[in-house]
Amino acid sequence: METNIAALVEKVRALILSQSADELIGLIDDLHPADIVDMLQSLDDSEREAFFRIIPVEKAGEILGELEFEDQAGIIDSIGLSRSSQIISEMATDDAADLIAELPADHRDQILDAMNSEGEELRGLLRYEEDSSGGIMTTEYVAVKADWTAEYTMAQLRKSAPDVHTAYYIYVIDAADRLVGVISLRELVIADLNARIADIMDDNVQSVHVDADQEEVVQMFQKYRYLALPVVDSDGVLTGIITADDVLDVAEEEATEDIQKIAAVVPLDKPYFSTRLRELFKSRIVWLMVLFLAESITGGILQKFSDTMKSAIELTFFIPLLIDSGGNAGAQAATTVIRGLAVRDIRIKDLGRVLGRELALGLILGCAMAAVAFLRAGRVGGGFEIPMVVAASVFAIVTMATAVGALLPMAAVALKVDPATMSAPLVTTIVDGLGLTIYFFIAKAVLLGA
Amino acid sequence: METNIAALVEKVRALILSQSADELIGLIDDLHPADIVDMLQSLDDSEREAFFRIIPVEKAGEILGELEFEDQAGIIDSIGLSRSSQIISEMATDDAADLIAELPADHRDQILDAMNSEGEELRGLLRYEEDSSGGIMTTEYVAVKADWTAEYTMAQLRKSAPDVHTAYYIYVIDAADRLVGVISLRELVIADLNARIADIMDDNVQSVHVDADQEEVVQMFQKYRYLALPVVDSDGVLTGIITADDVLDVAEEEATEDIQKIAAVVPLDKPYFSTRLRELFKSRIVWLMVLFLAESITGGILQKFSDTMKSAIELTFFIPLLIDSGGNAGAQAATTVIRGLAVRDIRIKDLGRVLGRELALGLILGCAMAAVAFLRAGRVGGGFEIPMVVAASVFAIVTMATAVGALLPMAAVALKVDPATMSAPLVTTIVDGLGLTIYFFIAKAVLLGA
Repeated sequence: METNIAALVEKVRALILSQSADELIGLIDDLHPADIVDMLQSLDDSEREAFFRIIPVEKAGEILGELEFEDQAGIIDSIGLSRSSQIISEMATDDAADLIAELPADHRDQILDAMNSEGEELRGLLRYEEDSSGGIMTTEYVAVKADWTAEYTMAQLRKSAPDVHTAYYIYVIDAADRLVGVISLRELVIADLNARIADIMDDNVQSVHVDADQEEVVQMFQKYRYLALPVVDSDGVLTGIITADDVLDVAEEEATEDIQKIAAVVPLDKPYFSTRLRELFKSRIVWLMVLFLAESITGGILQKFSDTMKSAIELTFFIPLLIDSGGNAGAQAATTVIRGLAVRDIRIKDLGRVLGRELALGLILGCAMAAVAFLRAGRVGGGFEIPMVVAASVFAIVTMATAVGALLPMAAVALKVDPATMSAPLVTTIVDGLGLTIYFFIAKAVLLGA
Repeated sequence: METNIAALVEKVRALILSQSADELIGLIDDLHPADIVDMLQSLDDSEREAFFRIIPVEKAGEILGELEFEDQAGIIDSIGLSRSSQIISEMATDDAADLIAELPADHRDQILDAMNSEGEELRGLLRYEEDSSGGIMTTEYVAVKADWTAEYTMAQLRKSAPDVHTAYYIYVIDAADRLVGVISLRELVIADLNARIADIMDDNVQSVHVDADQEEVVQMFQKYRYLALPVVDSDGVLTGIITADDVLDVAEEEATEDIQKIAAVVPLDKPYFSTRLRELFKSRIVWLMVLFLAESITGGILQKFSDTMKSAIELTFFIPLLIDSGGNAGAQAATTVIRGLAVRDIRIKDLGRVLGRELALGLILGCAMAAVAFLRAGRVGGGFEIPMVVAASVFAIVTMATAVGALLPMAAVALKVDPATMSAPLVTTIVDGLGLTIYFFIAKAVLLGA
């Protein structure tokens, strides 16, 4: 059931114009922050500024957390650092940390200073690597002591509840704040009132280290199917939690990064329109240049065979076709293996199995393509020799390309390099050089040899 | 904190051998099903069969739900349909539905018949499309009536709790089972005992239709950041829920599918080693053939310019280089736009903006590449003419390829086709034909014309 955004925009605009603060607050109170964000996109800058001045800071904090950084920065600039600090204090700490990390240093310090104790907490979060557990986690969670009773725990929850957004898993800590167990809110509700937490909790609690890479976090969520996971430091002290909704974002980020690498684009982690032309240029020119220079060896290869080409110019007609087929077959194999490695269907120990399969596959694909190539080349006219050369080359090239395409990502893993850098274009370039060499050797042998 | 799987395997093996059922049950009771699955991979078939005969059906159901289908089928075959039915009854209904859907028809019917009422529930789930909300959802959820009190609701929860795994969001239904609101367990716990559910619930409850595509479900979870979402039919009746852990799986599936399409591989939805060679062959040969036949027009283009090539054979040296650069630039643009469309950074209304950016980007990339090409081609020796032709062609081809690469996915969306089918290889093929034509026109103009 989608909210009618257009109607909402009209209402909000009217209320802002008439400065009807109470009505506006009442209207948005029922809405999900994500829908409010949609509505905000349709307002102009002055209306947005007015909006963020009128509504209460708690609601403003929720909404600000849902915006992209460019929009957040624009609003902070328009409403000033003082009100911004108040609003940021009301944001979830993981969203606040992400925002503050990207602000200019002087704004960041001013805002953190204005925030006092919450500022200290955020400074702590900012010390962690962006792509680590510490960089994703939030510090809003519920922690109880092992020696509390169920009744006492529920009373504590009632007292502190308004400040805590995520309280399904309740984490149990000892006197030194170390994580010792977990209990779900449901188990707490159905427990005997006098039962001790230590007796009803699950002491086999999974956790992740605060410096663990975010890819590892995604894999843990996929394996253990949790809705939230606690984060601990090297002493086992509970420092934060990561929730499934943040993991969904991380998973999408990681997939986008892999897709870009496979296409030989240096990965960007911003939305498309938020990325300046200069940054898009830099992300593409690197590989375009590298691949251009690598591919230029094909010029040298062709130069070597220029006499062969002159004597049978029809050979040149098939150059794009052959290297294209090699490139496609190689890209198919490479992409399949890269993704298999990423989702852990394939491990480095499977090298032999993968190569065996891909080689067999390449041979079968090569045969099929050779048949098609023979028929297609035959239509050019002339004798049987050219079609035979083309067919034999297609067979050899497709087989070679499939094997190479599968091998390179696995070699990358063995060399501790990200397999996605074995991008399709890189595989293509390597395959082109080998492919042309194969083609002209076969051509010389058939046309000029015995 | 990772569980030591090797030690676990040894212990389990010993307990199975000595038929110490109680000890085995005690040992695995503390473990997460995912860790048990790791342990099972190291057992042989007879040990696995013994394991699934010894342990209680409830635990067996949890574990079976975590296995891949091939392993599930193996176990069902070894322990027989009767015990399998008992175990499947204990599985989460979404996992049970997925398993049963892939079994041979006669096994499926036998198992469903043996399951009585749960069998009916599963038959209902099996009617939904695999990639829809109905295909992902589970039917284990908590629903309460709007006129209940908080106290009565908690009492009901205590009674039915053992059967329900997910009870953070509690859904509120009316007399006709229609979804009317939602309340979190936390809100329930802190509410006045005599409060009516209708007064404390949130009546602005998001939901998704049972036939909605799974991509839409992923987007809703990303937008609204829920841990669970209710599924309703066309009458608004609550039929199931989808939890965030299942959405994480779906998101990964969708990303893998897109990656495969971009590489011109017909998507497979099974893990790499579970896919037979025949299926891998079919997934690749389709596009290899299509692209081969499409690319063969380059043969016709080159045939047209065969005289030009004969008179200046050096022109052929650069053919792979030029079309490769065009292909890379086109693939970069296409992949960026396809991913931007998939994560909704780019919408169809952004067509003009995207083309404008990519055209500008193409011109700048083209200039940079032309400079490099000029220097590189100059090293081949001879005069200035060939390097000029190559440089001018690189400029034109990279610009054209970037624009075409960005345009095709957006055109696909406008034609209601999945943009990921505008794979890099397809873009490459289109760009090759145009690129060669541009190259030889420039060559003729410079070398043979005025």
